[in-house]
Amino acid sequence: MDPRVREHAETIANHSTGIEAGDDVVIQLPKEAEDLAVALHEISGDRGANPVYLNYSKRADRAFKRASEGFEEPAHRRALYEETDVFVIARGGLNVTEDADVDPETNAAYNRAMEDVKRTRLSKTWCLTQFPTSGHAQLAGMSTEAYEDFVWDAVSLDWEAQREFQAGMVDILDEGDEVRIRSGDGTDLTLDISGNSALNDGGEKNLPGGEVFTAPVRDGVDGEVYFDLPLYRYGREIEGVRLRFEDGEVVSHSAERNEDLLSGILGTDEGARRLGELGIGMNRQIDRFTYNMLFDEKMGDTVHMAVGSAYPETVGEENEVNESAEHVDMIVDMSEDSVIEVDGEVVQRNGTFVFEEGF
Amino acid sequence: MDPRVREHAETIANHSTGIEAGDDVVIQLPKEAEDLAVALHEISGDRGANPVYLNYSKRADRAFKRASEGFEEPAHRRALYEETDVFVIARGGLNVTEDADVDPETNAAYNRAMEDVKRTRLSKTWCLTQFPTSGHAQLAGMSTEAYEDFVWDAVSLDWEAQREFQAGMVDILDEGDEVRIRSGDGTDLTLDISGNSALNDGGEKNLPGGEVFTAPVRDGVDGEVYFDLPLYRYGREIEGVRLRFEDGEVVSHSAERNEDLLSGILGTDEGARRLGELGIGMNRQIDRFTYNMLFDEKMGDTVHMAVGSAYPETVGEENEVNESAEHVDMIVDMSEDSVIEVDGEVVQRNGTFVFEEGF
Repeated sequence: MDPRVREHAETIANHSTGIEAGDDVVIQLPKEAEDLAVALHEISGDRGANPVYLNYSKRADRAFKRASEGFEEPAHRRALYEETDVFVIARGGLNVTEDADVDPETNAAYNRAMEDVKRTRLSKTWCLTQFPTSGHAQLAGMSTEAYEDFVWDAVSLDWEAQREFQAGMVDILDEGDEVRIRSGDGTDLTLDISGNSALNDGGEKNLPGGEVFTAPVRDGVDGEVYFDLPLYRYGREIEGVRLRFEDGEVVSHSAERNEDLLSGILGTDEGARRLGELGIGMNRQIDRFTYNMLFDEKMGDTVHMAVGSAYPETVGEENEVNESAEHVDMIVDMSEDSVIEVDGEVVQRNGTFVFEEGF
Repeated sequence: MDPRVREHAETIANHSTGIEAGDDVVIQLPKEAEDLAVALHEISGDRGANPVYLNYSKRADRAFKRASEGFEEPAHRRALYEETDVFVIARGGLNVTEDADVDPETNAAYNRAMEDVKRTRLSKTWCLTQFPTSGHAQLAGMSTEAYEDFVWDAVSLDWEAQREFQAGMVDILDEGDEVRIRSGDGTDLTLDISGNSALNDGGEKNLPGGEVFTAPVRDGVDGEVYFDLPLYRYGREIEGVRLRFEDGEVVSHSAERNEDLLSGILGTDEGARRLGELGIGMNRQIDRFTYNMLFDEKMGDTVHMAVGSAYPETVGEENEVNESAEHVDMIVDMSEDSVIEVDGEVVQRNGTFVFEEGF
């Protein structure tokens, strides 16, 4: 086994989730990640935690979804999730377009049926990470070996130092009420964040981490945004997304590629047409786009916004949590001709923060 | 995908378990069996059943067991099992000796901790089957392709015809009180089966099936038995087992190979030193030993007995069910110099039943 797999497992168990004696753990990995599963089982045994090993198979999910005429929440999955303390989930797989022929309405119906059980999972300790496979390497246009280096370097960052760097942006957002994001000709968006909290992602729920994120007030988003970076969702690439918001709601949308998939996502439910998250990427060690949101959204010189569910821990008591079966992140490149303003003051210009040298 | 995989899945779903709308299904397969998992997910979707996909990984189990200092029943696994209607479990794996370096006491302790949750599983609809992998082909001394033919032929038998053939033996055992098994110099064993029921295994809980089985009365086993065929258990081969019974209990035991593992099994608990099952192999289509109990115990010309837990459905109301965390089958070759007598009458001689031509 590559020694970096054991290090990855140690980071998950120590830093990201803090697995300890008596914890009931769910380990959900694609079959290609068996080495990581073995390492996590070893750690679980060593600490007196109890693993249940689920398979994360897009092939099986696709077959199930395509054959189904409707979905209901399964009682056994709910029972399992309710009794679980820690979820460790890794993406991987040999073909990222494995579920490209599941239609958007089917995905939306499935997500609606699973919304509540997913909320149960998100209420526990959890970590989403990546196992480097040939499929994701291909998506990134990289050799498998170079992609392995990329992933294992990214997860083994000095997370304490990263958190410290990010703390500056947490303070700015926590003290601020209104964020305005301008980039090129396509993006001029104002987000009310008053009363909501900014969280410092240092590689806990997402590994790698490296962002500061909050939720906009549910009705407080106005303007236009053009997302420069494409995203993969349900095995297909959505490119060139434009959204126009009024009073928090998407009032018009378009995409240069796979607009039907975007429409399907926005049509999932009421909450899927509102923003649940605003995130500022601050991880400069991730130095290339790999078309994998887990990494891309953490990059320096980017911001991302997610249509769909908000993380309840980012929403203040007086504000309403945006609920949805969806949560789809999309990225704006902030490296050129771009500024972030908070309460009228520029806090980032062309990717450089106000608290950094060279601002 | 090999079309025989889909046929295998259909047999599991239709014949063995009867998966139907609303069923909560657990599919637990080794990673090599992903094709079978995909086919089972497709069928589940088609019928409105809900799958949870567990990984069956000896590598992960080994790592967990070796690292642990003790075991407890995990609440999340219990919750999952309690809410599940149908379990589909397939063996497979690339190396059948994957857990050869887990010590017998550790396995015994693990099984004791899991005894109750295993009982929950056995109280549901379940099917244990085989996916043909290189590891099991090697164990059988066969090419992988020939082993695939062997497995898929075996699971696609005409199960109705097989059940009909076996019904003759069910009648004999149900009407009988005492079974005496003699074979060569090593085996002369008397088993009291009065009040217990014989079941006709036509490929339901075991796929392939092909045996008639019952439970001896807990205190009613006397004499000696020599098991001609080796067995694989916990990744090691146990060979040349001799057991001597008095009043149902093993009073002495030996093995020509890996006796410590046999001792560990018998030492698991009180019930592991008593017989939980007597089975008569009647599947003549399985025409070679493959050192895989799921197949070997079904062969014609054999009987098998299991130390450990009895199947409650074979035990009459006035008799006690033998309980144990173990259930280990062992085989006697009945093809030569052998007879089965029931209440003093010979019902099988050198493998040929009283109701067959050539008796």
